[in-house]
Amino acid sequence: MRSLIDIKELSLKELDSLIDTALDIIENPQKYSEKCKGKKLATLFFEPSTRTRLSFEAAMYELGGNVLGFSEASSSSSAKGESVADTAKMISCYADIIAMRHPKEGAPLVASMNATIPVVNAGDGGHNHPTQTLADLLTIKRKKGRFNNLTIGLCGDLKFGRTVHSLIAAMSRYEGVKFVLISPEELRIPSYVKTDVLDKCGIEYVETKDLCGAMPELDILYMTRIQKERFFNEEDYLRLKDSYILDPQKLENAKKDLCIMHPLPRVNEISVKVDSDPRACYFEQALNGKYMRMALILMLLGIK
Amino acid sequence: MRSLIDIKELSLKELDSLIDTALDIIENPQKYSEKCKGKKLATLFFEPSTRTRLSFEAAMYELGGNVLGFSEASSSSSAKGESVADTAKMISCYADIIAMRHPKEGAPLVASMNATIPVVNAGDGGHNHPTQTLADLLTIKRKKGRFNNLTIGLCGDLKFGRTVHSLIAAMSRYEGVKFVLISPEELRIPSYVKTDVLDKCGIEYVETKDLCGAMPELDILYMTRIQKERFFNEEDYLRLKDSYILDPQKLENAKKDLCIMHPLPRVNEISVKVDSDPRACYFEQALNGKYMRMALILMLLGIK
Amino acid sequence: MRSLIDIKELSLKELDSLIDTALDIIENPQKYSEKCKGKKLATLFFEPSTRTRLSFEAAMYELGGNVLGFSEASSSSSAKGESVADTAKMISCYADIIAMRHPKEGAPLVASMNATIPVVNAGDGGHNHPTQTLADLLTIKRKKGRFNNLTIGLCGDLKFGRTVHSLIAAMSRYEGVKFVLISPEELRIPSYVKTDVLDKCGIEYVETKDLCGAMPELDILYMTRIQKERFFNEEDYLRLKDSYILDPQKLENAKKDLCIMHPLPRVNEISVKVDSDPRACYFEQALNGKYMRMALILMLLGIK
Repeated sequence: MRSLIDIKELSLKELDSLIDTALDIIENPQKYSEKCKGKKLATLFFEPSTRTRLSFEAAMYELGGNVLGFSEASSSSSAKGESVADTAKMISCYADIIAMRHPKEGAPLVASMNATIPVVNAGDGGHNHPTQTLADLLTIKRKKGRFNNLTIGLCGDLKFGRTVHSLIAAMSRYEGVKFVLISPEELRIPSYVKTDVLDKCGIEYVETKDLCGAMPELDILYMTRIQKERFFNEEDYLRLKDSYILDPQKLENAKKDLCIMHPLPRVNEISVKVDSDPRACYFEQALNGKYMRMALILMLLGIK
Repeated sequence: MRSLIDIKELSLKELDSLIDTALDIIENPQKYSEKCKGKKLATLFFEPSTRTRLSFEAAMYELGGNVLGFSEASSSSSAKGESVADTAKMISCYADIIAMRHPKEGAPLVASMNATIPVVNAGDGGHNHPTQTLADLLTIKRKKGRFNNLTIGLCGDLKFGRTVHSLIAAMSRYEGVKFVLISPEELRIPSYVKTDVLDKCGIEYVETKDLCGAMPELDILYMTRIQKERFFNEEDYLRLKDSYILDPQKLENAKKDLCIMHPLPRVNEISVKVDSDPRACYFEQALNGKYMRMALILMLLGIK
Repeated sequence: MRSLIDIKELSLKELDSLIDTALDIIENPQKYSEKCKGKKLATLFFEPSTRTRLSFEAAMYELGGNVLGFSEASSSSSAKGESVADTAKMISCYADIIAMRHPKEGAPLVASMNATIPVVNAGDGGHNHPTQTLADLLTIKRKKGRFNNLTIGLCGDLKFGRTVHSLIAAMSRYEGVKFVLISPEELRIPSYVKTDVLDKCGIEYVETKDLCGAMPELDILYMTRIQKERFFNEEDYLRLKDSYILDPQKLENAKKDLCIMHPLPRVNEISVKVDSDPRACYFEQALNGKYMRMALILMLLGIK
């Protein structure tokens, strides 16, 4: 029995296989519409995350399965003091696969060690969020047709943004990838990401505060939300949150085939005026998340 | 692609068609049990409304479809600052049709302008609630067999009660309709409803504070809840909420075939002693709401 | 139309029939996978109880049916002042069977008197929780092969623990049953249980504070959670909650075929070190709850 807690658990071959399955689902949805008939997904969301939860639920429904669970901790047994380990064992009686979101890092790992069914990490604190990275990878594949020889700009909160760390980990395994790390001083990428991932893989990168200056060379621009809850005081948040807002003007010197991504939800990091730009890929990215989750559910349940 | 935000968007011909479909569903439920197989309804309830939400969910399940969504704002991405427009675009990736309830007037309209799937307004503030009106109309049709030549008493909160405003708008399109507007002074029908709807359509109406006096001539008596949340102070609420309570005594001079309606939930506007009166139609009205929502979902999804 | 509010409403013959159905479901799940196709379960949880709710939902899905409802009172119409009676009537329009959890004793009974569909009591205050008892009974049957001639230890909160009262009521109908009631002084079994159930049925029992001393003669040890919410002050709770913690050491003198049960969720009444003991049956008990709920839904809906 297999779980997915961290994107790095997937080999490049497995990633390719997931992407192939997702592309086949997009081409032939009908072929997959009964694959999970009689199966049940448990969405255990100890903190709310509508987009992620609904994406998992849509994925399971489009495979013909059913969904049960909870969308916030107050509705769960944990309010009565139940451990994550016990919840995982208990849910194993009621479902075939778990998608777990938890504010504490490591909780989905603990769940996977106690459940008798596969567990998918749907985000644990500032830690991992592998299915977001799967969505990102399918978007890159569909837009660029390749994973190597790409210059990827990462912009915004590079310190706390887990989607950015996961994407770096995933893309650093391909050749010819270069990262441009665009952030205010306070939100620079943590040094362990540089030493343990980028340097280790021999990946080229530059750090800059200047979004406009970096723009012309980018194949991909990955914007991130500056989350209020990551800051210690309101003042720092207000000063920084608007620092890196993408608008049509900033895109003037961008490549014609730039691919603009964002994990959503956005607050105002990307002006709505950008939405109609054909280079805006963030809503398609959400759609791709559903397809990759479908592929992942099939893989973890061992369904061909 | 078609949405339903305001009951007035439906032509009389479309209303007739919806009612015909609902009547056919009632006769032949089995014929419809797989019509929406593989389709997904998203119930986006930014404020709780159990009855409306469960009615939509039951409707979708009885058509063979599935349901995902949230039942209050705290579980939604909006808590992270996402706009209604973005939520609508995002949900369009995960569902085939949206039922949206929102405390802010106009929010479902904004959603419908951004979604790529149909949006049904399931109530927006004090504004519109078209599927409640659809339930009302089917109840009138099934009980009276006609929409014209009816004297309709509307009783209770006529100022803030959106269901009443929508019903007036819908029924004012038929001939021979007369309204008796029964309310305390403070909760009289707004003057714009009188000038823009009733006068414009040449509809006869009287205003009165006297429920008993109005009773004998009514074909339909539509009771409404006096909602605490519409008042500025507790004292006004307590003084007014019990003013217009329907009980068996008040029904003594009513017609034998009076049709008593209420959008539910009720607090105490109708005594439970009235429930066993064959003229009480309010629970049947809730059932009719399910059938009309089924008919509407089929229409908006273009399913025959 | 039949409801289940109290375990005592079921005759021994009906209990046998439910257990036979559950055992057949375990053997032949495929045979039952479409039995409730097109049927809807409403889970009306006026207070959260994840395990019970998900068990009901899993049961309905494994029978091919659908589920709608709410998981806490704030999402329900009751927040607008709707009575349980009205909610029951309303939900009867949208579902085929109700599972209701309510903090007030008697609420599910009121619901069953007003609904036009079967109501299952999924726990009402400190009162009844019949489907928990059904889970307990199937566990005893599967582990011991019989209901008579068993010595059953009940340990922990015997005063407020409704599962314990229900289990005593159910097991007191069998011959040769003996209870060992193990609790601190403050949480002893209420005297009415002794006079109205145990003495009336001529059932042998002893009361003791000593878990270890009682251990050797037990065939079944039923541990219960000491619920914080049942105490008037924090101090009493802290002093008592750890009094009766089961660990491997306390099990040294236990029978080889002891069956250790717990209604879950547990806090720390049973050390996790006991989980790997083959005599630990509490997670299997949760699984058995699902099968008995499936059997019950079929019985109440009159499906063979």
